[in-house]
Amino acid sequence: MVAPMKTPIDFYFDFTSPYSYLASEMIEPLAARNDRGVAYRPTLLGAAFKVSGQRPLIEIPMKGDYSRRDLARSARFYGIPFQLPEPFPVGTVTAARSCLVLQREHPALAVPFIHGTFRTYFVQGRNISATEVVHAALEEAGADATAVLAAAGQPDIKEALKTAVDASIARGVFGAPFFFVDEEPFWGSDRLPQIERWLATGAF
Amino acid sequence: MVAPMKTPIDFYFDFTSPYSYLASEMIEPLAARNDRGVAYRPTLLGAAFKVSGQRPLIEIPMKGDYSRRDLARSARFYGIPFQLPEPFPVGTVTAARSCLVLQREHPALAVPFIHGTFRTYFVQGRNISATEVVHAALEEAGADATAVLAAAGQPDIKEALKTAVDASIARGVFGAPFFFVDEEPFWGSDRLPQIERWLATGAF
Repeated sequence: MVAPMKTPIDFYFDFTSPYSYLASEMIEPLAARNDRGVAYRPTLLGAAFKVSGQRPLIEIPMKGDYSRRDLARSARFYGIPFQLPEPFPVGTVTAARSCLVLQREHPALAVPFIHGTFRTYFVQGRNISATEVVHAALEEAGADATAVLAAAGQPDIKEALKTAVDASIARGVFGAPFFFVDEEPFWGSDRLPQIERWLATGAF
Repeated sequence: MVAPMKTPIDFYFDFTSPYSYLASEMIEPLAARNDRGVAYRPTLLGAAFKVSGQRPLIEIPMKGDYSRRDLARSARFYGIPFQLPEPFPVGTVTAARSCLVLQREHPALAVPFIHGTFRTYFVQGRNISATEVVHAALEEAGADATAVLAAAGQPDIKEALKTAVDASIARGVFGAPFFFVDEEPFWGSDRLPQIERWLATGAF
């Protein structure tokens, strides 16, 4: 008998979430060290914020100022290139829909697109809410950008993203990055050490 | 010449903050490993929440449910005894004022009182908003509990706590635990690894 494949780590993210970007640069090696894959699940945080009554970190008095400093310092701590882009945050519906198109039709290109889009925004500082910027990220990932963007505008993909967002909220995803290891939830890039121990020890 | 004493780590906390309790069990050895002391600074988070528009974690939809799980898991991760008490959160003005009295009049008893009060609430599950519970924690710390509680009710100590809370807000303390290493701010028990590197390398 072949051992059953272990379930991948679910990684919920929004392309405008800087802590999601930081986590996206670390989660694959962490998963691989523990014999797991990563299931990337794009979502839109705005919908969850409506349910939880939260708002973007950066807009919260006191906490917003701290978070700018913490983000830059956390990136240095992890050794990951980072700059907080302007404007921030931005809408990510086109990027998220494009991601779903790739995952459905060209799955091998989805992960390069995810990393490329995060870096486009958080390293190069280009505004990923603009269709032409998503177009460029799709091309860099090796996709037929025009075709993907056309598919991203179709009703089935719009519906698929809406369904994915609703499902993430139903699962309790109130922020990002948000992970499930099997059914255990972990929120925040600072929970990666706990995820690693969870994987290594089989819960603790 | 004697080397100048390094400034202690400022540790802002509220006695009802469970992540502050977790941090309180780790910060002294971390500081000692890096040749520092800890300056304990009791505050009342409610006042900061009014400024930032936040509310207690546990009351936030979705996030509250997650935080119960995360707290218990984080305590296991760190190897620290913990149970979320009921009621939670509670008012901590009597405990905070008593702490200020000790820091002013019997400084050697303040740290035992701080650890004892946190454990009274988060290990034994006793309601530290009750004067008789603070009385017991003071006695366990070796203080004249009746005298300390009498002093805690005097106008000068009430004013001192108000001043301390206002100063914490002015310094940007929007949550707890909140640390300053020299002037660098760190929020959350999950920032202890960054604090340790900051101390060890002299900023990064």
